[in-house]
Amino acid sequence: MKVSELGQFGLIDAVGRMINDARDDRADSWKNLIDGIGDDCAVWRGSPANQLAKVDCQVQGIHFDLDFTSWEDLGWKSLAVDLSDIASMGGIPQYALVSLGLPLETEVENVKSFYRGMLELAKLTGTAIVGGNMSGSPIVFIDVSVIGITGNPEGLYLSRSSAAPGDLIAVTGWLGTAAAGLEMLSRKLTFDAFVSHCLKQSFARPEPRLPEGRLLVEKGVKAGMDISDGLLADLGHICQASAVGAVVKIEHLPIRPEVKSSFGDKSVEMALSGGEDYQLLFSARPEIIEEVRQASSYPVTVIGEIVGVNIGQVVVINEEGKRFQPPRAGWDHFKHEIS
Amino acid sequence: MKVSELGQFGLIDAVGRMINDARDDRADSWKNLIDGIGDDCAVWRGSPANQLAKVDCQVQGIHFDLDFTSWEDLGWKSLAVDLSDIASMGGIPQYALVSLGLPLETEVENVKSFYRGMLELAKLTGTAIVGGNMSGSPIVFIDVSVIGITGNPEGLYLSRSSAAPGDLIAVTGWLGTAAAGLEMLSRKLTFDAFVSHCLKQSFARPEPRLPEGRLLVEKGVKAGMDISDGLLADLGHICQASAVGAVVKIEHLPIRPEVKSSFGDKSVEMALSGGEDYQLLFSARPEIIEEVRQASSYPVTVIGEIVGVNIGQVVVINEEGKRFQPPRAGWDHFKHEIS
Repeated sequence: MKVSELGQFGLIDAVGRMINDARDDRADSWKNLIDGIGDDCAVWRGSPANQLAKVDCQVQGIHFDLDFTSWEDLGWKSLAVDLSDIASMGGIPQYALVSLGLPLETEVENVKSFYRGMLELAKLTGTAIVGGNMSGSPIVFIDVSVIGITGNPEGLYLSRSSAAPGDLIAVTGWLGTAAAGLEMLSRKLTFDAFVSHCLKQSFARPEPRLPEGRLLVEKGVKAGMDISDGLLADLGHICQASAVGAVVKIEHLPIRPEVKSSFGDKSVEMALSGGEDYQLLFSARPEIIEEVRQASSYPVTVIGEIVGVNIGQVVVINEEGKRFQPPRAGWDHFKHEIS
Repeated sequence: MKVSELGQFGLIDAVGRMINDARDDRADSWKNLIDGIGDDCAVWRGSPANQLAKVDCQVQGIHFDLDFTSWEDLGWKSLAVDLSDIASMGGIPQYALVSLGLPLETEVENVKSFYRGMLELAKLTGTAIVGGNMSGSPIVFIDVSVIGITGNPEGLYLSRSSAAPGDLIAVTGWLGTAAAGLEMLSRKLTFDAFVSHCLKQSFARPEPRLPEGRLLVEKGVKAGMDISDGLLADLGHICQASAVGAVVKIEHLPIRPEVKSSFGDKSVEMALSGGEDYQLLFSARPEIIEEVRQASSYPVTVIGEIVGVNIGQVVVINEEGKRFQPPRAGWDHFKHEIS
């Protein structure tokens, strides 16, 4: 059945039931929820903790291609990109509002799959979906707003503007894996089952680094963000906001062996500029970084350092100790043609 | 200059400056804001008051037509529709997140006009725009999420599910004026300057009834919502949520004389089903309604009553006391072709 046959209110009812079935009263978000979907606004009991909020958007043909992205993965990822921003502040997500633009011929089953994927991640992270909107549209677009709180009694959080010369720069996890996944899916490349699964998951189901974000704040890290536009572009944002420079060493970039072996030299470009890894990028004094590394059960890799020169810029050093000029710096939604 | 020439980050900078210039430190929202646009999330000091949140969306070709809607009006209205939902709970708006989808050829000046219109209403209502997103898109779409608080120490708010038999049904302001405005603009009808202005404003710059929403809660009204889809559709939502029926008398509908004289019998249909008036629709015991009427400086009109029969349905009675069958019940985004 198509959404034009079921109608807006029928679709809202069907999705509302799925969301209510996913209710999890062990989560603080659900415990404090007074009214969810069904009235003009969602209502929940407030908290004096510092509040965090973020909106992010996925547009068909710009951010995703339904030829190689399933609706279920799209649901997961549309929430994940927002949760990653909460993670990048060291916060705890609580509530999400979801606005969908859907062509009239969209299959209702696809919308349900979308919500299944999103609810899977919502449940894992204690996020309650409390409101939404559905509208006809010539293309699919998805806007998700997430509201959360800082994860510590002092209300501390990571910011882009707190990096200081002498800080080491570190990242969680691996870089370039999502870009490798996109390359594999869009160009229909074939790899063995393990590599293929790993690349696809990184691209299609990024895992917001929520526990790591909280750990960073707990250990005293002040400067951080998530990597969505690519390491160089995002580190550039930190350099600009903090009025510092950064030096990154290619040999230290954490690139999965399977990405290196499958993509060769291109894997470095993927790690530097690929984007969508949704790992955390942060800087702090060496002793704090060491504490984080020891306390984290997830990989943390030092990739360079913050310097007091070349303000606002990221310098990349290759294996021979020479300055490396990466092919492109990042992603600008208005400077690329719609594919 | 087009947005494709300025680029995403240039556009975000330009809009960010406009928003910061609109900062108003007399408003609680701005006073409590710690970090606005520029980091991964907005951050503000929380409050133990009950929180309200809502997302709403405007899609080109579905909700608006740039042939007769200015970008400035579009900015105003995109925020107004959300604030109306906060008003319909009797709440106070605080923070807004704005996600824009824009074709690459959009003029930067148009985006600035959009924000000028939105910031005008934001300032009037004490709403701080604290985050956003801009993405390329083949069509213009706008998602606005608003977060607010209940406007009273007890955390009370209006809900759709609190109507009870014996309640009188009332509305603020006038009905059908926005539909008349849309008809005038889309069909290029001409009226005298006063009528023309009044109809255009109602359609293009709806004023969320925030003070009236708070007054309703203060006076003890429990059931209410805003009229976005049309009186019959929205009153139907109250009837369904409250498991009651409703009787509405056509002769009591508050229709502006200029709408009546310009559109004749069609004005009744506009008042019943036109939608987008963003007035408040509520019900309460007669003595409470009377108190509200006396305390309100804005018109409040009783249009019918809540009954214990015809559960979930709205019965319309015409001037001769007979049941009237309106031509259409409301608006369903997936059941109408994209214009």
